Amino acid sequence: MIIKTSPLAPKKLKKLYEIDGVSISSVSCGIKKNFKDDLVLIKFDSPSQIYGFFTSSKTPGVPIVWNKSIIKNGKVSALIINSGNANVYTGKKGEEALKKIITALSIKLSINEKEIYMASTGVIGEPLDYKKVIKQIPLLIKNLRNTPQSWLKAANAIRTTDTFPKLYSEKIKFNLKEKFYINGIAKGSGMIAPNMATMLSFIISNIPLKKNGAKKEFNNIIEKTFNSITVDSDTSTSDMVLLILVKNKIRKNLSPLKKKEFFDKLESLMANLAHLIVKDGEGASKFIKISIYGAQNYKDAKSLGMSIANSPLFKTAMAGSDSNWGRIIMALGKAGVVIDNSQISIKFGNLLILKPGQSFVLKNIKRINSYLKRKEIEISVTVGSGPGNSSVWTCDFTKDYIRINTDYRS
Amino acid sequence: MIIKTSPLAPKKLKKLYEIDGVSISSVSCGIKKNFKDDLVLIKFDSPSQIYGFFTSSKTPGVPIVWNKSIIKNGKVSALIINSGNANVYTGKKGEEALKKIITALSIKLSINEKEIYMASTGVIGEPLDYKKVIKQIPLLIKNLRNTPQSWLKAANAIRTTDTFPKLYSEKIKFNLKEKFYINGIAKGSGMIAPNMATMLSFIISNIPLKKNGAKKEFNNIIEKTFNSITVDSDTSTSDMVLLILVKNKIRKNLSPLKKKEFFDKLESLMANLAHLIVKDGEGASKFIKISIYGAQNYKDAKSLGMSIANSPLFKTAMAGSDSNWGRIIMALGKAGVVIDNSQISIKFGNLLILKPGQSFVLKNIKRINSYLKRKEIEISVTVGSGPGNSSVWTCDFTKDYIRINTDYRS
Repeated sequence: MIIKTSPLAPKKLKKLYEIDGVSISSVSCGIKKNFKDDLVLIKFDSPSQIYGFFTSSKTPGVPIVWNKSIIKNGKVSALIINSGNANVYTGKKGEEALKKIITALSIKLSINEKEIYMASTGVIGEPLDYKKVIKQIPLLIKNLRNTPQSWLKAANAIRTTDTFPKLYSEKIKFNLKEKFYINGIAKGSGMIAPNMATMLSFIISNIPLKKNGAKKEFNNIIEKTFNSITVDSDTSTSDMVLLILVKNKIRKNLSPLKKKEFFDKLESLMANLAHLIVKDGEGASKFIKISIYGAQNYKDAKSLGMSIANSPLFKTAMAGSDSNWGRIIMALGKAGVVIDNSQISIKFGNLLILKPGQSFVLKNIKRINSYLKRKEIEISVTVGSGPGNSSVWTCDFTKDYIRINTDYRS
Repeated sequence: MIIKTSPLAPKKLKKLYEIDGVSISSVSCGIKKNFKDDLVLIKFDSPSQIYGFFTSSKTPGVPIVWNKSIIKNGKVSALIINSGNANVYTGKKGEEALKKIITALSIKLSINEKEIYMASTGVIGEPLDYKKVIKQIPLLIKNLRNTPQSWLKAANAIRTTDTFPKLYSEKIKFNLKEKFYINGIAKGSGMIAPNMATMLSFIISNIPLKKNGAKKEFNNIIEKTFNSITVDSDTSTSDMVLLILVKNKIRKNLSPLKKKEFFDKLESLMANLAHLIVKDGEGASKFIKISIYGAQNYKDAKSLGMSIANSPLFKTAMAGSDSNWGRIIMALGKAGVVIDNSQISIKFGNLLILKPGQSFVLKNIKRINSYLKRKEIEISVTVGSGPGNSSVWTCDFTKDYIRINTDYRS
């Protein structure tokens, strides 16, 4: 089966920065066919701060269980990622495979086992051949580099059904000499749904941030970015976002202003990576932003938005450029949130299609139908005058989603 | 667009019975195009017991709101159904339209307004032209008949995207003279999901049943039948099951044994109608039964089954006859139910694919792949040794679902 690059792929890839103290390499170990890169090592010169956000699945993969068991130490020295096999539902053999890989890396790099994280993505239920991985560890170590090119190679090596590599970067400037960076790579295209499901993303920065209160801020940002996207409502067993802060030699502290700048840029980077995942949604031909305004609280607003974003009937209407707002009403109704039906209004772009009082705006239909032919669509739904607002992102549901998933084993 | 009859349609339609005291007629009033029947009247000679089960949607249609407001009286004398327009999100105009129709019927039939139920199915958000309906009331009344043919005509008139009419019947025999009947008709093919969503069904019997405890028994049966099916996880704004018990002149009481026989046959009838809806699921090529065994309780078992049944990735795998049990594991994991991963086993038909201890049964793969090419598939998942068991029914997810829903306005 030929899978074409998503029509929503960005025209230009963002260039990542060199970050002192971080080196990367990618090789092929033979899990993927045709000698494609399927193994990545990211190494940190000294133990670095790590924050992890993991899938909510009750059938998590072996690497998820391992990472969660060591995250409380908060330190990372190396990160190994394989694609092509998720090491999920592989029983005791899967646990042994992970253990052997971690031990081998720990010996070769002379680092603590509990500072080594692993991520795996690909087929569920097939044993992970750890010998293939271990055999390539010497080459992985030998190839470690700190160049923009090595980040791009890693972003490619972690792909499964992805049709393009996903990477993004941001810079925080203090003065001519002092610049700090955030690099991020990600993968994911099917089995994408909220709650940290269905993606891998690794974000690395050398910003000098104290731990104090950082986790809470990161949770907020994750909630508004990676946890606000959905492709097909399915939740993966394997996926995670790791945020790593490496030491730098230049500066030890951030002013409140610079701290805010860092968080803003981190949010921008995470939003961009999350949106790239949706833009590579299996079979996607349209990128759709759904904003809910005026709900009782954020949680209600998000439930309403996600109910629309996950509705197959809404998503197929979008694929057909059909202004069938009845399906939006249906999706609002099934979200389980109490709403006042006399207050709802709906806009496609800036064009009103439903006014409060259940009043349909016939005169805008022509312009809306032409608006809906675009590749990027915004839908705004006002449900009342409460303080709860939320935006979520999804893609349309096309024949290609079915084609890809009836044939492919992910 | 040409929509072919579902490949899962039954080869033969069940014949319905004449039930004394019930008459039916169907006509075209011009809401549907091409003079297709789109209006049905069911009339009861004397006020009859009625039980209603309505959509859980928070954006319910006008008829739902009306019916819920009168159901506490528990009596019905007439039921009017239109297809082609759902009378949902039509504001004050929609309420007026319903009121005018009910009033007109009440006058023409000399019956109490609060004993007239209405059901509407079709497009959301377009005004219902009540004048078209009212104009045809005299013809509707004139055509009232009590024949098997009139039931079939009604089952056809309430169709929207349905590719075949749905009807079923059962008989309870006391002796040669005394026979009682249950007739049921239904419609639905898209926007099918649990919680009484996305279907209309009208079930009528002349069984002499006392009200005492009946509602609880009916709720249980609905839970195991109409509330255990899903096509696309979307919940309609309009749909309902009405169960009507008309008076008979033969017998006033049921023995406990005959009462049980009635409930069993009612469950069989409701299950058959519910399964017909799934078999007419938009684009369906396979009818799938998913049974969960050994959960902590019924609720957990049902959540796990529904999570599989609603997973687009599972449903596309079934369309491709792909024994990708990893997607079943994924769906179990996202259901939010705590499970012991060492205890799970999975069977396709009678063939084990996963044994407890996360152990994959490779030797059955060939036979499973051939089993999965069938039109009717059973999947059993044992999650432990608890008392919670549940079966749910769904269909696969094919390119035709997308084709139908990108083009059609439901």
